Amino acid sequence: MFNEYLEFAKEIALYAGKIMLEFYQDKLDLNYKEDKTVVTLVDKKINSYLIEKVKEKYKNHSVNGEEESYKKNSEYVWVCDPLDGTGMYVNHIPVFVFSLALVYNGEPIVGVVYNANEDKMYSAIKGEGAYCNNVKIHVNDKDLGDLGYRTNIEIFHNDIIDEVSLIKELKSSSKISSIGSVARSCMAIATGDFSCDIFPGTSHGNCDLAASYVIVTEAGGKVTNIYGKEQRYDGDIKGAIISNGKSHSKILQKVRNYLL
Amino acid sequence: MFNEYLEFAKEIALYAGKIMLEFYQDKLDLNYKEDKTVVTLVDKKINSYLIEKVKEKYKNHSVNGEEESYKKNSEYVWVCDPLDGTGMYVNHIPVFVFSLALVYNGEPIVGVVYNANEDKMYSAIKGEGAYCNNVKIHVNDKDLGDLGYRTNIEIFHNDIIDEVSLIKELKSSSKISSIGSVARSCMAIATGDFSCDIFPGTSHGNCDLAASYVIVTEAGGKVTNIYGKEQRYDGDIKGAIISNGKSHSKILQKVRNYLL
Repeated sequence: MFNEYLEFAKEIALYAGKIMLEFYQDKLDLNYKEDKTVVTLVDKKINSYLIEKVKEKYKNHSVNGEEESYKKNSEYVWVCDPLDGTGMYVNHIPVFVFSLALVYNGEPIVGVVYNANEDKMYSAIKGEGAYCNNVKIHVNDKDLGDLGYRTNIEIFHNDIIDEVSLIKELKSSSKISSIGSVARSCMAIATGDFSCDIFPGTSHGNCDLAASYVIVTEAGGKVTNIYGKEQRYDGDIKGAIISNGKSHSKILQKVRNYLL
Repeated sequence: MFNEYLEFAKEIALYAGKIMLEFYQDKLDLNYKEDKTVVTLVDKKINSYLIEKVKEKYKNHSVNGEEESYKKNSEYVWVCDPLDGTGMYVNHIPVFVFSLALVYNGEPIVGVVYNANEDKMYSAIKGEGAYCNNVKIHVNDKDLGDLGYRTNIEIFHNDIIDEVSLIKELKSSSKISSIGSVARSCMAIATGDFSCDIFPGTSHGNCDLAASYVIVTEAGGKVTNIYGKEQRYDGDIKGAIISNGKSHSKILQKVRNYLL
């Protein structure tokens, strides 16, 4: 059954990738960046398609999308960020992904993140490992302070954590970047590239994180809220710390000093 | 003559791109990331090739490369960063470029930045405009505080500017990212995508910036050191502020408060 859900999620992902690349092509049309028109168009198109397909195939399931939702009284919720990394997408930096999870009773049990630009399909089913294009993936075993330990932090207005002061503390023991897509960064953790991501998002933050939760966890990493607790992914979240597992408690200790 | 220099620079860029992509392919080989072996290999291969070609064609010119230099008593210096964005490259995030400028008496007069991953060749000759794949490019006209104004800041150990506190101040009036390649960020400024980049680099910093200087300037933007002055690009620099021009003085004002 989970396999069928995964295949369904991958189909939606491939459709999403096609739409993303279609509009990303207009590379030198400098006009549409001023507003969010293109992004909204891409977002909405993917989000509507998902709802349509869920209604067709799993009509008792709910959909929780960043753009549009469809609520049924169900323990199953498809949680989706149609285009994670919109800031990079509109600026023609190829760091953006599609993210979709099936969440059961608050827990993501199937997840797909699709990097259309490089045709990489990341996926996981709870208990069955994590994969990128059907090759098994695993987190690294670096500790904070180790060579190449990299933390990604998205920087935006938020009142949950003083992430900028945290960066100041972390930059002596970790490389720091802010690549503009938390889900892409999570996939870098799942493949052993990055070691940690600190995500200050709350409202709709579950849409960005639900798929990454199961993929990173199945790749051997750890995902908690910013207080170090497990949390539900069928509604707003309290930020997230995503790590290779090994360094999770050390990162939590650092984060604790910058909670607002 | 300048056209001939530009064609020469583009040839080197295409070779560099081939080497970069060749080693970038091993996408799921998780072993080589722990150390810098691959990067050093790619860097050195490109740097040596440049020196060999300059010796063949312009034997009285110097080469100032991040990996290797070749000094002649000449007013002409080829200034090169063989692989800008190494942190992203080794982590399989497609944000890395090749950068090469011909600097005459300290001033970049020909510049090429090549984004091999997306086959985009950015180029400029002093006084003749800036191009991406032969299409003219131009900076945007956003001011700090405008919708979509984006500042990119590389975060690393440095004693020239407290960039983290600066981010804290800027994040209310600008989107902030740290994509991992200053030259790639400069190209986003030259095409009107990003609006500003704050670069705290000093030692070898000219290698990262020389080509971007002429490309951004020819695209209508402005490049100074972090104090707002012009500077030479044939040796170490004092950081850089790269902007769309319009917002340059406002950014300099902000930066002034965080100089170390």
